Amino acid sequence: MLQVGIIGAGRIGRVHIQGILTGVPGARIRAIAAPHLTEEIQSLARAAGAKTLTEDYRDILRDPEIDAVLICSPTDTHAAISIEAMEAGKHVFCEKPVDLSLVKIQTVIDAARVSGVKYQVGFNRRFDHNFQALHKAIAAGKIGSVQVVKICSRDSEPPTAKFVRSSGGLFLDMTVHDLDMVRFLSGSEVEEVYAAGSVLIDPAIGEAGDVDTAAMVLKLRSGALALIDNSRQAVYGYDQRAEVFGSKGCISIGNDTPSTAILSTVDGITGEKPLWFFLERYLPAFQEEVRQFVEAVENDYPVPVGGEDALQATLLAMACTRSAQEGRPVRMDEFPVSHC
Amino acid sequence: MLQVGIIGAGRIGRVHIQGILTGVPGARIRAIAAPHLTEEIQSLARAAGAKTLTEDYRDILRDPEIDAVLICSPTDTHAAISIEAMEAGKHVFCEKPVDLSLVKIQTVIDAARVSGVKYQVGFNRRFDHNFQALHKAIAAGKIGSVQVVKICSRDSEPPTAKFVRSSGGLFLDMTVHDLDMVRFLSGSEVEEVYAAGSVLIDPAIGEAGDVDTAAMVLKLRSGALALIDNSRQAVYGYDQRAEVFGSKGCISIGNDTPSTAILSTVDGITGEKPLWFFLERYLPAFQEEVRQFVEAVENDYPVPVGGEDALQATLLAMACTRSAQEGRPVRMDEFPVSHC
Amino acid sequence: MLQVGIIGAGRIGRVHIQGILTGVPGARIRAIAAPHLTEEIQSLARAAGAKTLTEDYRDILRDPEIDAVLICSPTDTHAAISIEAMEAGKHVFCEKPVDLSLVKIQTVIDAARVSGVKYQVGFNRRFDHNFQALHKAIAAGKIGSVQVVKICSRDSEPPTAKFVRSSGGLFLDMTVHDLDMVRFLSGSEVEEVYAAGSVLIDPAIGEAGDVDTAAMVLKLRSGALALIDNSRQAVYGYDQRAEVFGSKGCISIGNDTPSTAILSTVDGITGEKPLWFFLERYLPAFQEEVRQFVEAVENDYPVPVGGEDALQATLLAMACTRSAQEGRPVRMDEFPVSHC
Amino acid sequence: MLQVGIIGAGRIGRVHIQGILTGVPGARIRAIAAPHLTEEIQSLARAAGAKTLTEDYRDILRDPEIDAVLICSPTDTHAAISIEAMEAGKHVFCEKPVDLSLVKIQTVIDAARVSGVKYQVGFNRRFDHNFQALHKAIAAGKIGSVQVVKICSRDSEPPTAKFVRSSGGLFLDMTVHDLDMVRFLSGSEVEEVYAAGSVLIDPAIGEAGDVDTAAMVLKLRSGALALIDNSRQAVYGYDQRAEVFGSKGCISIGNDTPSTAILSTVDGITGEKPLWFFLERYLPAFQEEVRQFVEAVENDYPVPVGGEDALQATLLAMACTRSAQEGRPVRMDEFPVSHC
Repeated sequence: MLQVGIIGAGRIGRVHIQGILTGVPGARIRAIAAPHLTEEIQSLARAAGAKTLTEDYRDILRDPEIDAVLICSPTDTHAAISIEAMEAGKHVFCEKPVDLSLVKIQTVIDAARVSGVKYQVGFNRRFDHNFQALHKAIAAGKIGSVQVVKICSRDSEPPTAKFVRSSGGLFLDMTVHDLDMVRFLSGSEVEEVYAAGSVLIDPAIGEAGDVDTAAMVLKLRSGALALIDNSRQAVYGYDQRAEVFGSKGCISIGNDTPSTAILSTVDGITGEKPLWFFLERYLPAFQEEVRQFVEAVENDYPVPVGGEDALQATLLAMACTRSAQEGRPVRMDEFPVSHC
Repeated sequence: MLQVGIIGAGRIGRVHIQGILTGVPGARIRAIAAPHLTEEIQSLARAAGAKTLTEDYRDILRDPEIDAVLICSPTDTHAAISIEAMEAGKHVFCEKPVDLSLVKIQTVIDAARVSGVKYQVGFNRRFDHNFQALHKAIAAGKIGSVQVVKICSRDSEPPTAKFVRSSGGLFLDMTVHDLDMVRFLSGSEVEEVYAAGSVLIDPAIGEAGDVDTAAMVLKLRSGALALIDNSRQAVYGYDQRAEVFGSKGCISIGNDTPSTAILSTVDGITGEKPLWFFLERYLPAFQEEVRQFVEAVENDYPVPVGGEDALQATLLAMACTRSAQEGRPVRMDEFPVSHC
Repeated sequence: MLQVGIIGAGRIGRVHIQGILTGVPGARIRAIAAPHLTEEIQSLARAAGAKTLTEDYRDILRDPEIDAVLICSPTDTHAAISIEAMEAGKHVFCEKPVDLSLVKIQTVIDAARVSGVKYQVGFNRRFDHNFQALHKAIAAGKIGSVQVVKICSRDSEPPTAKFVRSSGGLFLDMTVHDLDMVRFLSGSEVEEVYAAGSVLIDPAIGEAGDVDTAAMVLKLRSGALALIDNSRQAVYGYDQRAEVFGSKGCISIGNDTPSTAILSTVDGITGEKPLWFFLERYLPAFQEEVRQFVEAVENDYPVPVGGEDALQATLLAMACTRSAQEGRPVRMDEFPVSHC
Repeated sequence: MLQVGIIGAGRIGRVHIQGILTGVPGARIRAIAAPHLTEEIQSLARAAGAKTLTEDYRDILRDPEIDAVLICSPTDTHAAISIEAMEAGKHVFCEKPVDLSLVKIQTVIDAARVSGVKYQVGFNRRFDHNFQALHKAIAAGKIGSVQVVKICSRDSEPPTAKFVRSSGGLFLDMTVHDLDMVRFLSGSEVEEVYAAGSVLIDPAIGEAGDVDTAAMVLKLRSGALALIDNSRQAVYGYDQRAEVFGSKGCISIGNDTPSTAILSTVDGITGEKPLWFFLERYLPAFQEEVRQFVEAVENDYPVPVGGEDALQATLLAMACTRSAQEGRPVRMDEFPVSHC
């Protein structure tokens, strides 16, 4: 039974606590750290059976009974706590993004290599049942060699301009998941990206220096091509689709819906809208990624998605940002970071 | 926090224990009774945080701290334990069927009325997200007045002849859920049933005196008609569909699938098969029915499905059995039990 | 090039004239008979290149250049003109129904046998692309042996009470197509029918002695079961679906729509309604049945659907009528007509 | 009744002859010109009721009874015959492409302006029922303002290297239709294109100097973005889909299939593949475009798609070719042709 400490008990921290309690039988929550021990968090800690509840995450790192930590603290603390935790000999599951700085991500990767512990990054979408089905079918050769990858991601509601300002921009905040998907599904690294962005939803997003609508073409090392399109606002709900086309066929995934009900009336034949909220959509994926992390630790397997994946996705997001800003394709070897 | 005792820890008992742990925050499992305290059950009891683990369910009934019990023991004990539990002042959630004997079901109903506790029956399908979506749309008037109800239920694998012999037959074992759905979706009682059965899958089922394929037409009091068809073996998986047609439209539900993936190849455009196993298909429904039971107890609401519903569904299943055997429509008033 | 005469130039006659001109290259329209030679019909005859336009259909029967006739006159003249035409040595394609009287249908069948000409009946649905796809997949063994046949037919708009009075009733007017489909798809004759009807749409239909909603269960000689449901009014359009379930799988067909467009908005995910009008829905089928008739004549093949099929479907419709009226299952051997 | 001459009776010429005969009641085929009067063409001319059958298309241009011509001759003759025909006072429907040279297209446009006759170009896809449904929904405001347009076109079988060499390349031969669709659906001109191409299907296509797989991003004047992806070989059939996303929703179209049949077996839930051949897929569209041409001539309406549309689509295809070759986005104002 893996003894786990949770660092950070905000929205995503609570998702992971709940996820471990209900579907990760191999892990036990021993400690929770949160900056403010509200009544709600105390109640959650009790329900989780946590022995320790502390305002200082270092209490967790010092506890010799704890094997692994989940870092769910604010983004700007991810890298530092990751390194501290690995130095303390803890296996680490870190929420994404590891950091917006390439240098810091590289430092984390190096720390993981040196320390020999497991370091997994929270690219939850890789663990979603639909994307998993895509990945497995491709790996099983169902569509032959991959020629075209298409990802469509649209949020149900646009962020505030304030959030936008600290987010690193659409490509680093939102597209980063799609870029990881291109690598995951194609099995190929990317050679060059071209990105176009537009402000069509909220002028305040433009004033904050960002775009709210984007389209990309990627050239992969394998020769395959990828297309991504993003929007910050799909009024019909959180839209997450993908299609991979190859020499022997094509496989695509659509959205999950609350039910399979279809209503036929004078107004048409109407099915349910996609699930609205990303946490609802990806809840089982948040659980599955931790389950696999625990499994990797227990059996000393490689983690399914590590620091190098975070680095590559971040590099690609930066390249997209640069491409959109400079209006030209950007080759990945413009970035002086070693490719994997 | 409702203190709950679980009586019976076989397959369905374990489903409920797991369901309460992971999604019924208002209930706490205080005790578990099982005829043989295997290592597996002891481990489960520890995980559930149960204070008591006993071979004698009466220990649960005697425990004054316990508010409610879930009866998950073998079918032929349901009625007797139900009555004992209610006499002990416990609220009862009883797995279906309450009994195959109308007299015993009526006795249980009477006991519930006298005791004043809550008595809910495990018609899980009423709590399934798809059937719930149907029910809500109909209740909201989306299809106007109900004219035709159609239910299609097909098992993925046929039962053994041995099971068939003790099951009460296809209509009592399998169709009973569909008959409950007709009542649930139409909001009407049934006036007359006509059932036809055939042995097309396994001759051993015929030799055991049962059928493996069936088709029914029901006349409802409201004037609406219902059609049901059943099969003991759909090679493509557990098939659970329904359609309700009315004056303003039609609403239908299809099957749940493991993913939304669609593969296009030279062989066609292929989606995933329905979930294979009923426990997998209805897992959230098993949890939801207990959640609503707990809510009904806590707030003194009426239970969403009670003994009278069990009685009516059983009566209808018996009428179908008689109809198929005698080759004639059977009116519900042939049964001398008071209708609700 | 087959020389064809068209007897009757009402709605269905015009459909066939247009169908031959645009898609039956083996046939040439030589003559048209219509009771009133309106300007519209004269114009149609010119467009069709017809040499003869007459008020007297016997002019067509007397023309030695004419090989075959299409009988599109009013229903009550079908049988008599069929017999006259066959006696004149013409091959006959006769619109359905041949007649509502079993004796007259039998007389027509006998006349066809004696005369040695081809006699085809206009069961257009057998030639529809969807029903053809069903039939071919079943014939190719894709679903193994047939166990359950389900047909759902719903009109977009109810008939007038006046039409109802002369129609023979819902079972003879509407269900007759579905009954033919059960025979066509199952490859089996029917042994017994049970039908229930209800008046839920228009009380005037009830006052005219008919029902507007119906549900049936049929026992087939093969042991398979069939379910049919009918409604005179589906507000979302002409609804024509079928499903055949067997030992190796299930095949179903849905409705045709004007386009594949799907609109996603705050109101849901909405596709197009089925085609509204039966002539639009089955236009290619009306053409295909005549194409196959011409082919059967040219090559002396058996016609794809003949008088015996009309007889059986009519018998089944009569049995359904009797069943609904008498509230009991009706065995087909209650009818003293020889089965095929 | 418009008197029409057909110039060229190859594959597409015959499609138009058949189309006029079966569904363009306002037009009459008076003459057909073909370089070789084979027996097949003579037979077709007779069936069409054509008065004139000639090897010299100028016979058609000289015939004062002829109002309009359809130019279905080889591509490299389109522009010259178009100009000759217009000078002879004939209205012209010209198959696409008008020419691969911008100068020649501009000359044709000028000739049309000067002559005052109608000049329509064969962008058949605009008349397809699915693309029409898209266009109408967008025009009706169903999705609000257009933000993203996505077009996916994949051929069922790759062309020969020989064809590729004379085709102008994938962008001019294949993408040109998609580029026209972007303009048609967005209602906006294009400001800049970025295209990436790859040779993944047939090395011979690469050796011929072309690509067989392509992905594009377009920036529209309206601020909207467009994505196009093309493949020369989709093994599952001719794949023609589109999606338009806007401020109030999203509308998409899928492929047409031979039937709505869905087969459920142990292998999955399988629907039919898209229609294989573009002529089969777009047959009604080929008819509809001529019907609307005839209507425009008869009523002196503007033609639905004219020379300027051909020019813009060709310009866009050239810009894509340049972009893919030079590896950079190409602004449309690099081309010294006046925008519309």
